[in-house]
Amino acid sequence: MVKILRVNMATQECSFQDVPEQYAGLGGRGLTSLIVNKEVKPTCTPLGKHNKLVFAPGLLGGTNCANANRISVGCKSPLTGGIKEANSGGQSGGHLAKMGVHAIVIEDIAPEGQWYQLELGVDSAKLVPSDITGLDNYAGVAKLVEKYGKECSYVTIGRAGEFKLSAASIAFTDRELRPTRHAGRGGVGAVMGSKGLKAIIINPGDTKNVPLKDKEAFAEAAKRFAKALTTHPVTSQGLTNYGTAVLVNILHEAGGLPTRNFSNGRFDDHEAVSGEMLNQLTKERGGEGVVAHGCMTGCIIRCSGIFPDKNGKFMGKWPEYETLWAFGPDSGINDIEMIVRYDKICDDVGVDTIDVGGALGVLMEAGVLKFGDAEGALGLMEEISKGSAIGRVLGSGAAVAGKVYGVRRVPAVKGQSLPAYDPRAVKGQGVTYATTPMGADHTSGYAVTANILSVGGTVDPLSTNGQVELSRNLQIATAAVDTCGLCLFVAFAVLDIPDALAAIVDMLNARHGLTLKVDDVPGVGKLVLDLELDFNRRAGFTNAHDRLPDFFLDEPLPPHNKVFDVTDAELDSVLKW
Amino acid sequence: MVKILRVNMATQECSFQDVPEQYAGLGGRGLTSLIVNKEVKPTCTPLGKHNKLVFAPGLLGGTNCANANRISVGCKSPLTGGIKEANSGGQSGGHLAKMGVHAIVIEDIAPEGQWYQLELGVDSAKLVPSDITGLDNYAGVAKLVEKYGKECSYVTIGRAGEFKLSAASIAFTDRELRPTRHAGRGGVGAVMGSKGLKAIIINPGDTKNVPLKDKEAFAEAAKRFAKALTTHPVTSQGLTNYGTAVLVNILHEAGGLPTRNFSNGRFDDHEAVSGEMLNQLTKERGGEGVVAHGCMTGCIIRCSGIFPDKNGKFMGKWPEYETLWAFGPDSGINDIEMIVRYDKICDDVGVDTIDVGGALGVLMEAGVLKFGDAEGALGLMEEISKGSAIGRVLGSGAAVAGKVYGVRRVPAVKGQSLPAYDPRAVKGQGVTYATTPMGADHTSGYAVTANILSVGGTVDPLSTNGQVELSRNLQIATAAVDTCGLCLFVAFAVLDIPDALAAIVDMLNARHGLTLKVDDVPGVGKLVLDLELDFNRRAGFTNAHDRLPDFFLDEPLPPHNKVFDVTDAELDSVLKW
Repeated sequence: MVKILRVNMATQECSFQDVPEQYAGLGGRGLTSLIVNKEVKPTCTPLGKHNKLVFAPGLLGGTNCANANRISVGCKSPLTGGIKEANSGGQSGGHLAKMGVHAIVIEDIAPEGQWYQLELGVDSAKLVPSDITGLDNYAGVAKLVEKYGKECSYVTIGRAGEFKLSAASIAFTDRELRPTRHAGRGGVGAVMGSKGLKAIIINPGDTKNVPLKDKEAFAEAAKRFAKALTTHPVTSQGLTNYGTAVLVNILHEAGGLPTRNFSNGRFDDHEAVSGEMLNQLTKERGGEGVVAHGCMTGCIIRCSGIFPDKNGKFMGKWPEYETLWAFGPDSGINDIEMIVRYDKICDDVGVDTIDVGGALGVLMEAGVLKFGDAEGALGLMEEISKGSAIGRVLGSGAAVAGKVYGVRRVPAVKGQSLPAYDPRAVKGQGVTYATTPMGADHTSGYAVTANILSVGGTVDPLSTNGQVELSRNLQIATAAVDTCGLCLFVAFAVLDIPDALAAIVDMLNARHGLTLKVDDVPGVGKLVLDLELDFNRRAGFTNAHDRLPDFFLDEPLPPHNKVFDVTDAELDSVLKW
Repeated sequence: MVKILRVNMATQECSFQDVPEQYAGLGGRGLTSLIVNKEVKPTCTPLGKHNKLVFAPGLLGGTNCANANRISVGCKSPLTGGIKEANSGGQSGGHLAKMGVHAIVIEDIAPEGQWYQLELGVDSAKLVPSDITGLDNYAGVAKLVEKYGKECSYVTIGRAGEFKLSAASIAFTDRELRPTRHAGRGGVGAVMGSKGLKAIIINPGDTKNVPLKDKEAFAEAAKRFAKALTTHPVTSQGLTNYGTAVLVNILHEAGGLPTRNFSNGRFDDHEAVSGEMLNQLTKERGGEGVVAHGCMTGCIIRCSGIFPDKNGKFMGKWPEYETLWAFGPDSGINDIEMIVRYDKICDDVGVDTIDVGGALGVLMEAGVLKFGDAEGALGLMEEISKGSAIGRVLGSGAAVAGKVYGVRRVPAVKGQSLPAYDPRAVKGQGVTYATTPMGADHTSGYAVTANILSVGGTVDPLSTNGQVELSRNLQIATAAVDTCGLCLFVAFAVLDIPDALAAIVDMLNARHGLTLKVDDVPGVGKLVLDLELDFNRRAGFTNAHDRLPDFFLDEPLPPHNKVFDVTDAELDSVLKW
């Protein structure tokens, strides 16, 4: 029986409840955003008792649909002040779905100074005092694994979450029980910390895949969907061999790789910090290194390689493209091993690499360190777990760092750091940054597809033409994808291979006994976006918040020497339907 | 001839221009808010080139009207993100008025790393390289006085302004050429720093009082006005003998003195940090100490005493009530000499005592220091001028400090720290904090009058009844007072002695050849507020920003054990007419 688990941190009561009618039809982002919209006071203090933290697997979670086991985390964000959904790979999404947990809703806050961990089994849930308070994610998970075993998945916050830093993430263990997968953006880890919840231990027992309304139809559609993913070159070769870091050289070539705090679109040493370099070093060194590693059960794209040190020992996961960018070009650093170390620190202390890397670039612009000072950056990164003032500033992300250090050029929208695509050279991405209810976020409308990769059509990245429509359609589609629990990377196949979307719809119908058509999908995306926009409106957001910082409009970006010139009126038309 | 001086920091051009028709009728806050409304892009980066910094004396500045020489500073605030007017005493307002400078508008930004000082004489203005870069206000002013002499007044920023900290102030010298008077709130000093402007040297030469349209009528009205001020007990005795710190014991008694980061309304050691104690120690020690000291020419209230050390030497100015509160009860500190030292540090490095003191309370709540740790607080305060991470956090004010340290109970509205009146025990003040376009600000609608002092009527401070109307009327009246360049403290007399307002109107008419009536005054206030609200609306503010933090609604405040319970609908009705 599918249930919602409510956990009251003030009373430590855990109760399973039937899924109310209004929460039945959605999963993943759609469900977290619906619950936050209905249950959280939009003007509340994000770290206070009126905020809620919601975990939800997607509509296709717990099936054998490829790449469908992501988990969504929702709340009011302490970083942006608006609604937040951050999703992650790892094993927990699939586990929750199989266990029939439609959502976990963490409510109220624990008494001051008390830390708990949630023991979650099939139809059982209990808050007990935390075993790992004060530990970062790697040591914390190791200790929990010792106690609870290897069949569980683990959801934890590191010290950054305990400190309630605005860029704190929530970590989810991968198949090897490493805390490498994160709901990174928007400070969801700070909300978990504010509630006094240090960890969730998810023991799926011997649960099997979720029941299907029509097994045969599902199996047939799942096969078609898998075929699309194994056919498309991005999902079967590019991401698989080079990870998301395949983009470093591509964005450099396109002149849209933000370098030294968004002051250039190209980075001379791009090859040194590229996906090709990850691939080469991993193959050369062998040992525990892995090319083509999937972060969750059911992944057939396998972008999450494992990086070995010179002795072949596990050194860290392959940094994502955005991580390589943030600590590489954006900070002027060309040492890929150091970037792997920074990434490992982020995974360990539990912070978003984009916002912390963005903050590093901002602090370099402020003169705290020189651009390119890799050793200095390592020292700063190590301050986060210590809880020193500079560590906390860094762990609070680019906007806070910019404010504390009086920096004029701060690449952030709604308080959230811009990711690795300069909006002057990839204008569709700029439209998404400005308008998504999430704050600057590449994933919520990934216009790099048509702007740079010629996936799903071609739109000139340097022109404003077509960018509004492109961003709108991608934002709608993404909200639907995130609701299904699908990895966003399936979108590459979906955008180019018509049968992929048809297969998803067929799976949804076969799983839930629905009669959706392909044409209904945008309606789902719009519904989710409307919930998010409504929350943000009530939290005080207006069109004035849907703007990029001045410097993107004032400073032409080399090499193309373009500014961001999508008009305010165009931006205000993006999320209208 | 009255002129507007425009100073372009990018080109270093200074040009006097005739006052355009639309800028002719207002002064002080009315004029700064009008210019900011008309000329500043509401969504601009506050520290960027599109912001402007405006200085303006009031409509009665440069006359012999009592207490009319204040100076207003306007801009988009880096602290709140909205429009800001902060005004100050000192000599500069009177000087500018006499020199016929209707306003100074600082535009654009100096090239990176360049610092200038503005030499302003009668009909002359020139930007020259700064002589005092890197110095705090006391040393900086001393060096400028050496060069430019004792007849000038000096407008400076300390290191906090150079660092562009969100709580940085702008200092104005008093009659003894000490940088003790500050436009404190909203980070106006950061905006001055962002422009590369370190100081303004104002040389009034031998200018006399401004010309009057009707000398006799003016003299007669000025006399009536002065009589009201010397008659009312608050303006002739309370403030004169005890400074604004007369309020410490009164607010303690009322149970509205926020103690240990707004967790109690009473402070056991209130007498140790009271105005009575300032008076007693100043009299006992003698020497350079002064009771009844006026901060600007024409002041007859004389609240700004001078505090002597044990040897009778100048130790600092009498801290304002809000300063004594912030570093005293709010931080749990009961050592008045230490508070004088913190206040002197604030004057020197150039920061707002309310926001920095509020930040200190927040950092104590975060456990950085223990409440009451006076030595530890001194150490932290000294970090501001050093530019260390913790110093910058402290100098960024309560909201930023709360964000960096993950604090749940942050007493701020629109990013600005609440002053020294707990909104649960002085509910009219809470209404003002929530709704003023300035962010939490006591001066913009000082309901303490009727709530606590029985000035201008009596409204029960613990009840919501009548608070909306009270705050509305006071906000309107204050906007008019600030437009005249009058010290807000004249309001005590104006609220109780009907002829005081009539006298102000008669002076305005006699000065400018107008035919205003007393009934026209609210229209002026509403006009100014409308300009400010319009700017904020375009900057992205909505009713959702007119709210107090949750904890004021959730936590009853001892000893009265009341929460803030003015409804959202009531708050939304305050600035409607």
